[in-house]
Amino acid sequence: MIPVFEEAAIRRAITPAVAVRAVREAFEADGLGRTIVPSVINLRVPEPEGEFHIKTAYMRDLPHVAVKVASGFPANASRGLPSGSGLIALFDAATGLPVALLLDNGYLTDVRTGAAGAIAADHLASPDATVVGILGAGVQARHQVQCLREVRPVREVVAWNRTPERAERLCEQLRGDGIPARVGRDVEAVCRVARILVTATASREPLVRAEWLRPGMHVTALGSDSPGKQELDPRCAERADLFVVDRLSQCARFGELAHAIEAGALGEGEVHAELGEIVAGTRPGRTRADQLTIADLTGVGFQDTAIASAAFAALA
Amino acid sequence: MIPVFEEAAIRRAITPAVAVRAVREAFEADGLGRTIVPSVINLRVPEPEGEFHIKTAYMRDLPHVAVKVASGFPANASRGLPSGSGLIALFDAATGLPVALLLDNGYLTDVRTGAAGAIAADHLASPDATVVGILGAGVQARHQVQCLREVRPVREVVAWNRTPERAERLCEQLRGDGIPARVGRDVEAVCRVARILVTATASREPLVRAEWLRPGMHVTALGSDSPGKQELDPRCAERADLFVVDRLSQCARFGELAHAIEAGALGEGEVHAELGEIVAGTRPGRTRADQLTIADLTGVGFQDTAIASAAFAALA
Repeated sequence: MIPVFEEAAIRRAITPAVAVRAVREAFEADGLGRTIVPSVINLRVPEPEGEFHIKTAYMRDLPHVAVKVASGFPANASRGLPSGSGLIALFDAATGLPVALLLDNGYLTDVRTGAAGAIAADHLASPDATVVGILGAGVQARHQVQCLREVRPVREVVAWNRTPERAERLCEQLRGDGIPARVGRDVEAVCRVARILVTATASREPLVRAEWLRPGMHVTALGSDSPGKQELDPRCAERADLFVVDRLSQCARFGELAHAIEAGALGEGEVHAELGEIVAGTRPGRTRADQLTIADLTGVGFQDTAIASAAFAALA
Repeated sequence: MIPVFEEAAIRRAITPAVAVRAVREAFEADGLGRTIVPSVINLRVPEPEGEFHIKTAYMRDLPHVAVKVASGFPANASRGLPSGSGLIALFDAATGLPVALLLDNGYLTDVRTGAAGAIAADHLASPDATVVGILGAGVQARHQVQCLREVRPVREVVAWNRTPERAERLCEQLRGDGIPARVGRDVEAVCRVARILVTATASREPLVRAEWLRPGMHVTALGSDSPGKQELDPRCAERADLFVVDRLSQCARFGELAHAIEAGALGEGEVHAELGEIVAGTRPGRTRADQLTIADLTGVGFQDTAIASAAFAALA
């Protein structure tokens, strides 16, 4: 029998600091060519509509390979069930034998996504950017802020959500975490004040217009993590001085990059870098205060292998 | 906590009869367009060399979605460890929530592969074909014979293996199962007597030459289940009257079909049918005694969802 770890124990083991460190090392390893990342499985099921995403990756420097299954079933909410769930199975990278099961219900995905956003901002946002705009008030919004604090001070959060009450609830939580937070009037108002803009919605159409973005601003787009999802007007990519992706092959298939390519706003060859290359120092991040930067993050298997390995190390 | 079932209990729950029934229903459902099968993940890792395969599928008629991880690490044998392993996570198809973990160490993959071979032979081999040739003497060889017996009598098995001692051990096991079995001199000798030939090796180069195949014979090729593997000389496909695949998109990527296409021996459009279409009755199987038939089986996610669902139903 392999050990099975449950969500409560995993939550205690993985703090934002642990997550940012593990995920940063993973991006660095990726930038140095020390990962093997196969393409992901996206399984969409009908009646009720839902999806499963499966990701995995090998990392030369870690003893484990994680296989992560994440599910999303929006109709669950009306039945009092969580709309997102999942688990991670951990295997020995030298023998292929199962090592542990992490019944995290999607927590590790949430926190490694938060960590990736922080790492993107750390390399791409202006050093003095401390006002953060957030679109979406799901669990990811809070993870983004909690991880961002690991890389820089957060002076204020301005949040927007389609349902304003949920944005208000997020702001209350953030104030409880000691961060000044208020609800923005609309998406444009949030874009106008944010130096770092994080988009973390389930939108299937553009929310952010290119004309609302300003020089010197950084945008981390997280919501476009499977085919059909979109948060940015494709002209945002056209306007960006640096358009960075977490994985070119994924982003070109279903990230914001896919929409930008389809709209003719950006070519694959115009992507500045993969985030791992910037973390590893083989490509520069932001070099000028007035650059408009965009990070298109779809979530890569090496993040899952890294965070699951870190959780197992803390728990075993 | 979800229930975790271990190999011993799973072995008791899944007999060849249960496996053949569940897998037959799965192929039929697939032939009727009642499955959704995303592409698989093949992750190859270096040092020591090994691979992980991940498969999943949705079946309209089943309450679960299985995600199956299978690993293969040849160097394990020298360390006294099983070279193949794996597990299956079962999810609720209506909510995406985890339902159970089947720690089967690859057993369910073995038995559903045996069942698929039997189903292929049932529809493609001549009704009076009862002499079975087997190349390879791994665990799969025995599963093939045990499942074949569910669909027809097996009068004799002639086995070959690169290491003859292993072929002899297989024959002893089969005789213990009540089946006359003997070791063939070489691959050609096995091909010359077999009416049903099953190839279940880990070969990476052709073992079976086209000129050794005869009219009226049926070949089930199982070993070419990931890129680089091959058991049949591509001209076998050229000679076949009916070339059947379990999944066109997979076989064209890494099955025997891929090698046949690469060699110019067969076009994708010359594939007679997917096995599911034959089981569902939308395409014919064998229609004449003198046809040479080949089934190229790479293993499809719906087989895993079907067998895991059957195991859970028997165990829960």
